[in-house]
Amino acid sequence: MNPPPSRPPGKTGAFGSGAPTIHDVAKAAGVSIGTVSKALNDQGRLREETRVLVRETAARLGFRPNDLAQALHRGKSLTVGMISSDSFGRFTMPIMEGLEGYLAGEGISVFMCNATDDPERERLHIEQLLGKRVDGLVFTSRRADRRPTADMTHLGVPTLFVYAQSHDPMAACLLPDDQQGARDGVLHLARLGRKRIAHVTGPDRFEAVVLRQTGYLQALQQSGIDNYHMLLNGPWLETWGHDAVAQLFDHGGERPDAVFCGNDQIARGVIDALRERRIAVPGDVAVVGFDNWDVMTMATRPALTSVDMNLRGMGKEAGVRLMAMIRGETFTGITRLPCSLAVRQSCGATSAT
Amino acid sequence: MNPPPSRPPGKTGAFGSGAPTIHDVAKAAGVSIGTVSKALNDQGRLREETRVLVRETAARLGFRPNDLAQALHRGKSLTVGMISSDSFGRFTMPIMEGLEGYLAGEGISVFMCNATDDPERERLHIEQLLGKRVDGLVFTSRRADRRPTADMTHLGVPTLFVYAQSHDPMAACLLPDDQQGARDGVLHLARLGRKRIAHVTGPDRFEAVVLRQTGYLQALQQSGIDNYHMLLNGPWLETWGHDAVAQLFDHGGERPDAVFCGNDQIARGVIDALRERRIAVPGDVAVVGFDNWDVMTMATRPALTSVDMNLRGMGKEAGVRLMAMIRGETFTGITRLPCSLAVRQSCGATSAT
Repeated sequence: MNPPPSRPPGKTGAFGSGAPTIHDVAKAAGVSIGTVSKALNDQGRLREETRVLVRETAARLGFRPNDLAQALHRGKSLTVGMISSDSFGRFTMPIMEGLEGYLAGEGISVFMCNATDDPERERLHIEQLLGKRVDGLVFTSRRADRRPTADMTHLGVPTLFVYAQSHDPMAACLLPDDQQGARDGVLHLARLGRKRIAHVTGPDRFEAVVLRQTGYLQALQQSGIDNYHMLLNGPWLETWGHDAVAQLFDHGGERPDAVFCGNDQIARGVIDALRERRIAVPGDVAVVGFDNWDVMTMATRPALTSVDMNLRGMGKEAGVRLMAMIRGETFTGITRLPCSLAVRQSCGATSAT
Repeated sequence: MNPPPSRPPGKTGAFGSGAPTIHDVAKAAGVSIGTVSKALNDQGRLREETRVLVRETAARLGFRPNDLAQALHRGKSLTVGMISSDSFGRFTMPIMEGLEGYLAGEGISVFMCNATDDPERERLHIEQLLGKRVDGLVFTSRRADRRPTADMTHLGVPTLFVYAQSHDPMAACLLPDDQQGARDGVLHLARLGRKRIAHVTGPDRFEAVVLRQTGYLQALQQSGIDNYHMLLNGPWLETWGHDAVAQLFDHGGERPDAVFCGNDQIARGVIDALRERRIAVPGDVAVVGFDNWDVMTMATRPALTSVDMNLRGMGKEAGVRLMAMIRGETFTGITRLPCSLAVRQSCGATSAT
């Protein structure tokens, strides 16, 4: 028999330290996992001798079915549901990973359902998850604004909104601190001696855009830059970065010596457009992005300095809070978690390679 | 009371056509969904009068609990588990969407678990999903090669590998037809009059790379191009596209008039590097990518023609097959689904805008 999977000591997971798994029972009894499951749960068609063999093997190994028996015993299902409307997966997947990584250490699985902005389908998924008696629910979204669907609290289980907001002001929400993240990005540029910092960002119907703009203006004020600010809003696209550079650099006037961008795609367009004009980055113009998306940050030349929302850490914090809520603690309202700055060459803090 | 959600007729979903949902019961009884769930499932602490009120309301509306009662009745849980080791989500999310969109029409939810290449965690998720009596399991991966973990068949429920392979040659797998996709991309270039088509692609330890190379060589042969072929392998990165252009264009010799790329990131690097050399795309050199990833195809100038693996359609087909397997049909072995070509400006088939 294989050694049972090792677990960090002191965890109250589905497995005690070194407890046998359903795999061990299947192996020792010489049957499939499905057969063990059927035999122990009195389900499906099995020969009676198989059922007896599995049960005796399970008893001999000291196997405790980790789901059904424990769920009945503790009133917990050892699962958490996550409902996402982010069809890109770009924001949801790191949150899922952080959440899942933390909860796996507690012996809890995360079941993610994809709602794709369809309220009826979302309702189906919620019903199914509640039907499976999940211990908690996490809602995430593609953007950290209010979710279109209402009535997602009062579901009878601990519920947390992560990178998403509820219509209920009492609902527990984890969001990135967009304002602080933007402020730190711009303060970094100011500390490096930049005096004319422009902000090229997304549409201001996004709450994140407004918060980042506020952070930008705060940083200018904190840095004593009171004679220059330049705010340009456009779509969340690389092409907008190109267009913005045309607006900023092709018509005379006072040119910026730094551009702080609302996301990394815009920053990439800005850097490409500057290169085409033979304007050196970071020599003539420093550039900082937002999202720290490796597909973009590693492809710009030079590599892109970018604000990181720490979505993996946000997922982990969601796991910590959800466990606390399952144990009876209460969280309400919005908590914003700090962003950090990933410094590379485009800001001029380190020498370009 | 809101009208119940409409469903297409003739579907055997969790809801009959126009059947009331748990939301309708909650609304009519003036309680939360969680309370309805507890009352109907004889769970949790509730006052007896609340339990009676909910039950009477449910009976009056003709509500049938869509999960537990039906699951017991039909022996089905109305859920399918999906286990992914794609931490990017870029390949998994469209598969999930296709699968979920199809199965939602059958009243079935998809629960996705993230395994991140950790066999022990994967085992935990499988146990939890089996414990929840899922009707079927779908395994997906970040790349369509063999999954590292073994023993994923014989789980006692219908199991399908999608954009992933099993060690068991009898396991049912859905994969993209990489060879046909590459062949069609190169035939397209040949039909447009290109004679010297190079192939810049990823590392050949990937099965997909080998299959795409085979398709490339087949297309050259089919097109009667027997005096030129050029195969370059490197990492799956934009920077590799730059390096490959340096190898192909900076050292004299016969230059290609087209580059077929193993993915869109490489194609983007190729197009950028050609622009820097003032080599016109598609005028001097036509470029075709692979993946049809909009983040890349829309950002290259000109827009990128690219092979599409139709992952959404693959997810839908997975749903169709899984339903058939749940009804008792059998599928074994690998089925490859056709790729298509998304034609834009970079191949020269349409005028650049």
